[in-house]
Amino acid sequence: MHSHDHEHEEGTTLAPRFDSNGLITAVVSDADSGELLMLAHMNAEALALTISTREAHFWSRSRSEIWHKGATSGNVMAVKDIRIDCDQDAVWLIAKPQGDGAACHTGRRSCFYRSVEGTGPEAALAMSEDAPLFDPKLVYGE
Amino acid sequence: MHSHDHEHEEGTTLAPRFDSNGLITAVVSDADSGELLMLAHMNAEALALTISTREAHFWSRSRSEIWHKGATSGNVMAVKDIRIDCDQDAVWLIAKPQGDGAACHTGRRSCFYRSVEGTGPEAALAMSEDAPLFDPKLVYGE
Repeated sequence: MHSHDHEHEEGTTLAPRFDSNGLITAVVSDADSGELLMLAHMNAEALALTISTREAHFWSRSRSEIWHKGATSGNVMAVKDIRIDCDQDAVWLIAKPQGDGAACHTGRRSCFYRSVEGTGPEAALAMSEDAPLFDPKLVYGE
Repeated sequence: MHSHDHEHEEGTTLAPRFDSNGLITAVVSDADSGELLMLAHMNAEALALTISTREAHFWSRSRSEIWHKGATSGNVMAVKDIRIDCDQDAVWLIAKPQGDGAACHTGRRSCFYRSVEGTGPEAALAMSEDAPLFDPKLVYGE
């Protein structure tokens, strides 16, 4: 953390640092609750679309295509603020999910619905959130 | 987002999916304000140390070593909750920075201190946060 580009950190030029796959990491939190909802990736086009439409777009690494979040489920993310970090390789969307408010494909409000409890070999996950808001089988037809 | 491992998503077994570099992405938000503070990466050792000590540890990709956040600046991150996402390749730490409360190496509370404003060729960054909480030159001796 000791050699940095001052202009990149303190300047007003948007100059995202995409990785070797052309991606940056993007996280989305709920504009009202502050809860972290999801983490995904953006290529340059997804970032440009998010900036111009103020709806969250990502790059789907599994499908290799632009992913307009909520296009299938109806839970489009209305973006209130787009932040970029000090070295411009991560984006934070402050957003409000539309529709039934579920960000996760499992139907839950947030993808981060489990907490790590215990340590070492005893570490395990505990559900930290309510039941799904929708049935993914109905929405995605699986 | 259509083929998933049910046990990975609904189970209680901690089974992080490290990438080809042995890393998962970790984000830290402030336990009180909900503000996103930083994004970094963890290898298995950093995650285990974070779980066992309840202080945030990362893998420094630039230095190729375990990074006990705050060891230099005094702003250790006291971890209140450790969440993992649906496919177990991202971690969310809900934490409280100690010391002067700055998470960013620039001295700011959060690394995400700039907002994207405007669209297309007019997109630019606007400072969205107060002045640094410490002078990085004094803390890091640069």
